[in-house]
Order: sequence, then C-alpha cells, then structure tokens
Amino acid sequence: MSTALTIALDAMGGDRAPGIVIEGIKLVRERSPNVCFILFGDEKQLQPLVVKGPQLSEYVKIHHTDEFVTNEMKPSAALRNLPNSSMALAIKAVRNGEAAGVVSAGNTGALMALAKFVLKTLPGIDRPAIATFLPSMRRDVVMLDLGANLECDTNNFLQFAIMGEVFAKVVLGLPEPVVGLLNVGEEELKGHGYLREAAAILREADLPSKFHGFIEGNDILEGKVDVVVTDGFTGNVALKTAEGVSKFYTHILSEAFRSSLFSRLSYLLARSTLRKVRQRVDPRRYNGAMLLGLNGIVVKSHGGTDALGFANALGVAIDMVTFGFNDTIIQEFKKLEVDNVPLTKETAPA
Amino acid sequence: MSTALTIALDAMGGDRAPGIVIEGIKLVRERSPNVCFILFGDEKQLQPLVVKGPQLSEYVKIHHTDEFVTNEMKPSAALRNLPNSSMALAIKAVRNGEAAGVVSAGNTGALMALAKFVLKTLPGIDRPAIATFLPSMRRDVVMLDLGANLECDTNNFLQFAIMGEVFAKVVLGLPEPVVGLLNVGEEELKGHGYLREAAAILREADLPSKFHGFIEGNDILEGKVDVVVTDGFTGNVALKTAEGVSKFYTHILSEAFRSSLFSRLSYLLARSTLRKVRQRVDPRRYNGAMLLGLNGIVVKSHGGTDALGFANALGVAIDMVTFGFNDTIIQEFKKLEVDNVPLTKETAPA
Repeated sequence: MSTALTIALDAMGGDRAPGIVIEGIKLVRERSPNVCFILFGDEKQLQPLVVKGPQLSEYVKIHHTDEFVTNEMKPSAALRNLPNSSMALAIKAVRNGEAAGVVSAGNTGALMALAKFVLKTLPGIDRPAIATFLPSMRRDVVMLDLGANLECDTNNFLQFAIMGEVFAKVVLGLPEPVVGLLNVGEEELKGHGYLREAAAILREADLPSKFHGFIEGNDILEGKVDVVVTDGFTGNVALKTAEGVSKFYTHILSEAFRSSLFSRLSYLLARSTLRKVRQRVDPRRYNGAMLLGLNGIVVKSHGGTDALGFANALGVAIDMVTFGFNDTIIQEFKKLEVDNVPLTKETAPA
Repeated sequence: MSTALTIALDAMGGDRAPGIVIEGIKLVRERSPNVCFILFGDEKQLQPLVVKGPQLSEYVKIHHTDEFVTNEMKPSAALRNLPNSSMALAIKAVRNGEAAGVVSAGNTGALMALAKFVLKTLPGIDRPAIATFLPSMRRDVVMLDLGANLECDTNNFLQFAIMGEVFAKVVLGLPEPVVGLLNVGEEELKGHGYLREAAAILREADLPSKFHGFIEGNDILEGKVDVVVTDGFTGNVALKTAEGVSKFYTHILSEAFRSSLFSRLSYLLARSTLRKVRQRVDPRRYNGAMLLGLNGIVVKSHGGTDALGFANALGVAIDMVTFGFNDTIIQEFKKLEVDNVPLTKETAPA
C-alpha cells in the first residue's frame, strides 16, 4: 500500500476558480485514491464547496487567505506585495514539506517568479524551464522551454535536454527518449551560433539520452523526436502557432459541414468519427505545463480549462511526484558531474 | 491592350523540373495570355517539351546552359563556382531588363544569395526578406521574414512591415492592411528589447499601414492582422510548425475515417465536404515565397510542388510585376524619407 501524497493547490487561480478546482479534485481521486489536497484560498468560498462533495472533507484541507494574484498582476508585484497570496502559500507548502507538489491555474509569470524565489533551482540547473506535452503522429512529445527564458545559452539548452529526457522517461514512460534541437534546418551549419555549439556538445557528450540533432518546425508533430528543446521565445511562438492551426482546422471543418443541407446530413454520419479526431487533440488531455528544474514539483494548469483539464494537470503533478522526477534529475546531474561534462556556468571552462 | 510581360524561369530547379515548369506555364497562360517566358536550362531536355505543347514555342524561348544549382549546394558555392547556372542566368535576365521577374523552384539559399548579389537591394532596404501568404479564418495573411535573416534589428522590422503592407495592398488587394509584430504576449513590455523598440517606432511613426501591436502565434491563423512581421528564425519555425500541424490533421482525419467499416461508409458521404476543407488549405494554392526588397521580382516555388503549384508561383510573380510592387515600395520609402522617419542604418540617428 502506498502512503498518502499531498498536493498543494492555489484554489483561487484561473478563470473558473475555485469551482473547477474542486471538481478537478473529485475526478482525479477516482484515478489516484491516495492523494490528499491542501486548498489555499478564500475559506468562505471554499468551505461550502468542500462540504457539498461526498467525503471531500476527508482528504481536503482548507488553508485560508484573502490575498490573490490576479492575471493582470506583474510577477514582481506578486512577489513583493503579496507574500500571503494563495499562490505563494501553496508554493511555500512545498518548500516546508507539507506538500509534495503544487498546481495553479493562475498567472504564469507570477507562478514562475514565486516558485523560483521560494523553491530555488535544483543543483546543476541555471534556469528553470516551462515544458508541456503535445500529441504527434507517433506518440506524445515533450517540448521546452515555452517562455520562461526568452534568450538561452548553450548550457541552458543542455540542461533543458536532460530535464526533457528525464520527463519523457519517468512520466511518459519511454525507455530511450530521443532529443532534438529546434532549428531552421537539419544541417549542422544552420542556425544561431549558440544552437550549433549546443548541438556539438550534445553530439559528443555521453548524455543519458539519444541526441537526434536539429529538427524543424514540421518535425514536432510528426513525432520525429520525443523531446523538443528550444528557447522560450521560439517555443512559445511554435506552441501557440500550433494551437492556432488546430483552432483553424476545427473552424473550417465545422464551417464546411454546415455549408449545405447535404454536408449537414453527412455530418450526422461522420459525427462519431470526427469526435474521435477531436478527442485525440483535446487540449484538456494536454493540460498541464510543468515548471521544470525547481526544488519542488510545480504544474501550471491552463487558466481557462474545465474540471477535466484541471484533473489532468493534477495527474501530471501526481505522476511527477510518484515517479520521482526531481530525484532522477539530481542523479543524472551528479553522474554528469562525475564525468566532468560542463553543464552549468560554474563548471564550464572560462 | 496590355503589352507583353516576360518572366525568366530557372527551368532546372525543383524536384520535378523541367516537366512541371512547362506544365505550369501552360496553366498560367490560360489566366494571363500576355505573358512570355524565357527558360534557362538544358536545351536537350527543354526543346522536346516545348515542341510538344500547343503553340508553346510562340511565347517560350529557351536559353541553353548546362550548369545547374543542386539542392545540396551551398549558396556560396553556387555564387562562386556557377556563374552560368540556370538560376544565375535567369536572375541576370531580370537585371538586364530582358525579363520583369524570375521564378525558381530550386535551392532557396542559393536563390537568395544570387539574387542579392546580382540584383542588389532596393533603396531604403538594408536586407531582403522572404515572405509568403497563408490562409486564416478571415482572409489571406502575409508573413515575413521566413528565414533570410535569422537575427533582425529594429530597422529590419520596420522595413519588413512596409514591404509586407505594400504586398498586402498591391497583390492581395487589401485597402488598409493591418500589421502585427510576432511576440510571446500582447503587452507592450513583453519580449526581446529590439521587438519592443520596433513596436514603439511603429506605433508613433506616420507609416502607411495600421499597426496593431504585438500578436501571438495563435493570432496568425485567426487572421487578427493582415501582415505578420517577425525575424527569419521565428518565422521559419512558425511556418513549418503550422505546416506540420496541418499535415498532422490530414493524417488523423484520414486515420479516423479508415478506422471502422462505419466510418469508411460515412466518409463516402462526407467526402465532398472534406474535399472543400482540403482545397481551402491546399499548399499549392499558397505556393510562392516572395524574395522582397530586391531590385527585381524574385519568387521561389516549393521544390516538391506540381504543375498547379508552380503555376500559382508564376501567378504571384506576374501579379507583383503587373501591380508595380517594387515601384510602390520605392515610393513608400521616398515618402518616409521626406518625413524623416529613421528606417535604414544610414538615416538612423547614431
């Protein structure tokens, strides 16, 4: 029998909080019956919701606060002016050992700033990264960074590669994930200097993952690699462009199937097939952006998601705790240190 | 009656040259009966194809050469070692006034290098850019740069904005195109410093286009703006990611409609509707990347396209010549010079 695991929740973050937070908890408990939750937020709003749910009060504790980080707030303001926000307190619960991980659907910038300040980075990691997983023609793919670091150097890329590889191994369960660096061409001479330098080191170093080399934008959803490493600017644009194209397809498909009486009729028959397609790309299935490289598990849920999406973000956090994501990262970096691979600014030759 | 217009063709560029070049010419003549062509390439291969076509020899001239730029060739090698390649000679025909524009389905890097060297940039333009148009939920969108300039400064962005706006006006026929700068957020304080600087100038300068501000990746196919301005690295990744997602959708739709007997049957009815969707995103409709900012019209066709796609690339070149794309660019920059807007390195304050 496994021991109970506690997740801290910023119960006030997201467009539909705290309602979907409570509903998400109920859903995830069906899959993970040993998990307990601490809800940080407004007791007046939370208490009635917890009381209403069946047995909810048995595995949910409320920690009251009336400070909340809004979506419009600058990260620096959240950091300086709101030491007791529901987001800050949930992160502190991880630092203090009261919870094994934290999930928030609130302000991403504030979550990253607070998590960095409170939890600090893991040994060997210069800068944390935001990662997510995406569908592909082969299997799910991890991509990072998605916006935490607009500019990256060679060391950042190497650290992202290792973190992505560990995520693919321990959370997605791939035995030998393959890493690719996102670039504008596959040839060794293409792209920014720091990308070519990172590729050269990844090619030669005895890293735990297999390095494919450079990949291009179209390779991401073809599933050419399992881990896509890029800087936060490019990753953010690529991810949002992919989301935009996905929305565009949904739009033109629905437009086409409403364009005539005949196409409306054909839709009635095609409906179940189209539903299968929609399920495969359901953004709720891919909800949960991981803040990797911190001394604690931190997962960001999409702000506009529903209970099912929030439950999936909770599931990601639970998996990362259960499969020892951070411990594996620490071990990988210790091994590399022994092998004297220059991966951080401190150990890199001047 | 309009006078004849001549387009120079690199008849040996692309995976299926010279066959699709000839077929493309035939198709485009149906739309533009006044256009003549000079084919640069191997006479032995070209002559039989021209003789076979009905009246083809009336509007097609062959200029023999046996030097060809391959896809694997480095741009510098094409520039230095092959002064008489079919690509180089076709570009020189534009410089010498024998042709009004050039189209090639060959090596993009070599085409850009040769075109820059032979044609030089337009007055006011520091660096040419690669542009294309894309479908969106509203109407077609122009995006640039797509890979000519991996790193861009503020002036480059301003010049791209003007070139994109002129393209949207004179080729897509939009009366008042709106320009957006691709970034990781819409707020003024987001993103790289040079992006914020470019946005500040675009906001205040009395430019011919309307400036929307920053847009994000998902806004591209939503059609939030008519012209998407970005650096060549980001633009290349965004475009290829979009292509990848598009391919992914085609793949999962076809997989779903083959997954059971019932879905196969429903496909029979849905086929005409799905064909409409496919037509709307047909890459051949969007074939033709424009090398903007050069002293001559240069269009790159996709290397793997067919006759219809090649004809569309020809159509883009013909439209750019017919609607005076380059003359409009020159006029816009002259106007700005009078208004003393700092747009090039020469006129920018130190």
